[in-house]
Amino acid sequence: MPAFPVNRLCIVGVGLIGGSIGLAAKARNAARHVVGVEADADTWADALRMGAVDEITGDLASGVRDADLVILAVPMEAILEIIPRLAPLLKPHTVVIDVGSVKAAVVRAAKKASPLAFIGTHPMAGSERGGVESARADLFEDATWAVVPPINYIGDDIEDVTNFITALGAKPVTMMAPSHDEAVALTSHLPHVLAYTLTAMRANRSEKDQKRFLALSAGSWKSATRVAESSPELWTQIATQNAAPLAAVLRTFAAELLTIATALETEDMETVRERFAAGHAAKMSEREQ
Amino acid sequence: MPAFPVNRLCIVGVGLIGGSIGLAAKARNAARHVVGVEADADTWADALRMGAVDEITGDLASGVRDADLVILAVPMEAILEIIPRLAPLLKPHTVVIDVGSVKAAVVRAAKKASPLAFIGTHPMAGSERGGVESARADLFEDATWAVVPPINYIGDDIEDVTNFITALGAKPVTMMAPSHDEAVALTSHLPHVLAYTLTAMRANRSEKDQKRFLALSAGSWKSATRVAESSPELWTQIATQNAAPLAAVLRTFAAELLTIATALETEDMETVRERFAAGHAAKMSEREQ
Repeated sequence: MPAFPVNRLCIVGVGLIGGSIGLAAKARNAARHVVGVEADADTWADALRMGAVDEITGDLASGVRDADLVILAVPMEAILEIIPRLAPLLKPHTVVIDVGSVKAAVVRAAKKASPLAFIGTHPMAGSERGGVESARADLFEDATWAVVPPINYIGDDIEDVTNFITALGAKPVTMMAPSHDEAVALTSHLPHVLAYTLTAMRANRSEKDQKRFLALSAGSWKSATRVAESSPELWTQIATQNAAPLAAVLRTFAAELLTIATALETEDMETVRERFAAGHAAKMSEREQ
Repeated sequence: MPAFPVNRLCIVGVGLIGGSIGLAAKARNAARHVVGVEADADTWADALRMGAVDEITGDLASGVRDADLVILAVPMEAILEIIPRLAPLLKPHTVVIDVGSVKAAVVRAAKKASPLAFIGTHPMAGSERGGVESARADLFEDATWAVVPPINYIGDDIEDVTNFITALGAKPVTMMAPSHDEAVALTSHLPHVLAYTLTAMRANRSEKDQKRFLALSAGSWKSATRVAESSPELWTQIATQNAAPLAAVLRTFAAELLTIATALETEDMETVRERFAAGHAAKMSEREQ
């Protein structure tokens, strides 16, 4: 990757995240020319009209050719499928990053794809509404953006990548893949599983019951289930790529719920009060951060 | 309860809900004169300045004397403590309603307090920020407001109560207490337990881990944990008053999470996909309602 701003940026996957990166890079002069690679040709006109990319193609090889920085902004499975094919398609010194939600599998794949100059990343921003039509130039403003080097990383591209991320308005934070994946299992993947499970449980009732349940839904239901609007296919890929950390967090979380259920059944109000008070105190301290 | 608008409305507990009822009743001419009964004298000046009440007192007996409609807008335990004491304090034909989140215990208490003319209700509106300073005249606009008559109800006050609720801008829906309590166990009480449990789990880590977890929190975490800001004392009372339905829903929910954990551990991607797709489809159909 050359001097900043990036001369030629290639974004593979021009959806919500890829499109927002293009918009932010243009708005903030982080890239001079942006090439999009997007398999769904129906979205090309939108992406060009919005200014998310300067040109767009369905062909990976011609898109990444001559790029100084390549960003993989496709679903997890596609990231893992593209990484092994990239090295021969690139000119020397091209840096590749991805923006997938799970990092261990990606940096493992990148290590095997040597001599690819690869750094994993993950912007903590998104929306339950996907697609380039939901892309926004300010999506990453003040968002944490994890930077995850491969195991035994010896390159010198991290600074270039963090400079680019900073230029998009985000805050780069460097960490290793297992630390990242364990944290997002709790902070992001679990909330998605909870949302899908809540709405599925409601739907698993008679039609008459469901009407009543929906009438008796207010703000707490809407907040808790909002991300069930997210693509179940994308989230199946994320969950299965982060299977072990997510399964562990699900088991701990289920055990906590069962402890509360037992406390309720045995009229052990003190345990209920103590759990709720601990959660409340934790939330209030979050707000102060 | 006499002709509409209510001549003299007494609101017992002038916090978020009680204060919002006062503001809405004044703004929409649903009551001519509003008396507040509030134990916390520090909030009296705010309640009067905001116009949530026309007069305010700390004394229940003098507040409810001469009232045509009395609304109990205090926490669950206080509702159950006040109901048995009310009948001797009221003039003939006064109607009493409560706005508590659980109904079976309340209508049971009201039945024992015969000849009290009592109807349970529950507005599906609120906020994680309590107190009269958060009260809003439009809090109930288009919100469902459950109307729950006592068992073997033979009075003729339901129409007056639903007229009053409609006048506040809400949509009254009549149902029996067990149906109400079973539904809100899933749609409201469970989301609160999930929020408290999520933030408590995050707080149950080393300080260094917590920093990373907070940095890697985005929109899905914020939505899922928003209501952990709610008063843990209020929610302990709600949860323990609805103990059996909430414990049942917690056990079913935990079992669903463990099914997903097992599917992740055994690389059973199809089960994960099927669960997420069912939740997603349910959420999309909710949005169409």
